[in-house]
Amino acid sequence: MKNNNKKQTSRRNFVKGVGASMMSIGVSSFATSVMATTPNSKKLGVALVGLGNYATNQLAPALAVSNSAYLAGIVTGTPAKEIVWSNKYGIDPSHIYNYQNFDKIISDKAIDIVYIVLPNSMHKEFVIRAAKAGKHVITEKPMGLTAAECEEMIAACDNAGVKLSVGYRLQFEPNTLEIEKAGKELPLGPIKHVRSDFSFTIGNPKQWRLKKELSGGGPIMDIGIYCIQAARYATGLEPIAVRAVEYKTDPVKFNSVEETVMWQMEFPGGLISNHTTSYAMSANELYISYEKGKARLEPAYSYNGVAGNLGKRQLLPHKVNQQTLQIDDFVECIRQNSPSKVSGLEGLQDMKIVDAMYKSIALDGKRVEV
Amino acid sequence: MKNNNKKQTSRRNFVKGVGASMMSIGVSSFATSVMATTPNSKKLGVALVGLGNYATNQLAPALAVSNSAYLAGIVTGTPAKEIVWSNKYGIDPSHIYNYQNFDKIISDKAIDIVYIVLPNSMHKEFVIRAAKAGKHVITEKPMGLTAAECEEMIAACDNAGVKLSVGYRLQFEPNTLEIEKAGKELPLGPIKHVRSDFSFTIGNPKQWRLKKELSGGGPIMDIGIYCIQAARYATGLEPIAVRAVEYKTDPVKFNSVEETVMWQMEFPGGLISNHTTSYAMSANELYISYEKGKARLEPAYSYNGVAGNLGKRQLLPHKVNQQTLQIDDFVECIRQNSPSKVSGLEGLQDMKIVDAMYKSIALDGKRVEV
Repeated sequence: MKNNNKKQTSRRNFVKGVGASMMSIGVSSFATSVMATTPNSKKLGVALVGLGNYATNQLAPALAVSNSAYLAGIVTGTPAKEIVWSNKYGIDPSHIYNYQNFDKIISDKAIDIVYIVLPNSMHKEFVIRAAKAGKHVITEKPMGLTAAECEEMIAACDNAGVKLSVGYRLQFEPNTLEIEKAGKELPLGPIKHVRSDFSFTIGNPKQWRLKKELSGGGPIMDIGIYCIQAARYATGLEPIAVRAVEYKTDPVKFNSVEETVMWQMEFPGGLISNHTTSYAMSANELYISYEKGKARLEPAYSYNGVAGNLGKRQLLPHKVNQQTLQIDDFVECIRQNSPSKVSGLEGLQDMKIVDAMYKSIALDGKRVEV
Repeated sequence: MKNNNKKQTSRRNFVKGVGASMMSIGVSSFATSVMATTPNSKKLGVALVGLGNYATNQLAPALAVSNSAYLAGIVTGTPAKEIVWSNKYGIDPSHIYNYQNFDKIISDKAIDIVYIVLPNSMHKEFVIRAAKAGKHVITEKPMGLTAAECEEMIAACDNAGVKLSVGYRLQFEPNTLEIEKAGKELPLGPIKHVRSDFSFTIGNPKQWRLKKELSGGGPIMDIGIYCIQAARYATGLEPIAVRAVEYKTDPVKFNSVEETVMWQMEFPGGLISNHTTSYAMSANELYISYEKGKARLEPAYSYNGVAGNLGKRQLLPHKVNQQTLQIDDFVECIRQNSPSKVSGLEGLQDMKIVDAMYKSIALDGKRVEV
């Protein structure tokens, strides 16, 4: 009879029952070891807010292969997507929200983390609403439209006692970590220069990225921010001033946001980085001149692999899912109650630099302190 | 007897005699075909003015393997070098000059071309003196200290009826020519962006390159000019405006010239190039973003090979002597009385840009028209 009973109980339900009872009597270490064999019961539930390209093609697949998180819910303004996603990822309608009823997520026990993948102008609102709902939050970059917005978002999460992080996936990518390490341990000597460009030719002129009220800005906000990040993680230093100039060839397509921006960042000690970001050309590169060698990543910022060299060492692309690594790290931070490497403070710092860049652009390239 | 006489006459003297007589009676085509078998008699004689590193390690060896020119004379301020060079290259004392008696070169029939390899501030004086001596002239880059100097130099050579060219060796380097061709024929579509950096860490703080009265400026004059050249030959366009900013970390070492300059050049149609040149870091690169692909040369400017890719095509380094190609082309221009690709006008154009860059630096990065 016992054997028959076991057969009738699915492995998942059985272990879930054991786990729950163990937790209730406080035998957490035993529970954890049991739960380790039961993916979903130990995984934290993530709700994706905004089901655009990045959520669809990167984050949902990344969650599907994560050992510490899973896609537990969705928040979308498009009812048709509810059905598609529900079918594809087995999401119960009780974990599906729209932007109006999103706050009800507060009582959804399946959702531990809310991942904001909305147009930039909506990051602040939804981070704050998620925090008020008691959920840990990841927001895509740029964290907000301004440093002031980032400060509000950080305060809201602090007040709610939830963790906040920014979708800076590359800070978990192995070759990027090698570059970061070389900036700390200086195997090639001190850094003399950093140059990084990130640009692509933007397509559909009607997309939200080209509308300032949604994006907050053009390539600076979208991809230039990768170069800012790179100069910071490559050097381990914070820029003290910037100079930025805007160039435009298509004032119709780019009637709302910048088309091309070239800028320099001045670091303590006099190191200067030089950058271009644009929606009208192609580049995806990080170059570092050390006293005794140089490093290049190209592509430096791609989802499917970062590759290049560090001095004489070749950095072959790693077959890792960057978004999975990023989300797994955040889950670990939640579990350990430790600070995230890419917390709101990291996003705030970038937006202070972006603020200074827009100010410099307005001043026709004058030096502006960060 | 005839046979004996022939034996006593060296091949060189014999053919020289034939060549001279043929020339004198105007049978130049026959003379040329005879001379084609007699290297030195057909070769034009070059006098190197200034026997520093570039003359010693690049130009003299380049002349030694040229089929159209040979090292016929030297001009130096260092008597000890007269002996060394005379012994090494078999130069008769009658073709050796110093900076004071240089003008006597006017009656030296062995010298057809004077190649100025002096510190930048001396280019103008010696180009003009060489022109007045009736010699064709090559001057190293930068052609002069300012565009105004270049105009004087061009006028002097025009008045004297001699040809003037600038030592832009890369305009004869095969991979560079591929880049130039791609900018004309557009196999990868129109050019969207050019970026080029050229920098190295300068050694001896006492060298003339760090003294403005000799160099006229720092890395802009010395190596930044390669990036200006590259943006021009890659696009086939002339910049209409520049923005340049100077950065300095070592005001002692760089108390006379700039240490690092970052600048942008604006071309007709809105294409913007971005550049860094410095005496305090390393870079040697040309990157071009075309509508349908990209090209990179790295190294882009080295004597011993330029390599990279043009779209999917790999550009392997060519084992050519760039200086030989450059000098041979000049000889051909003299022979054909055709304009040099790297004439004084080419040097003048670069110096107009350099003038605008220094003006922009003085204006804290303001846009300055070329």
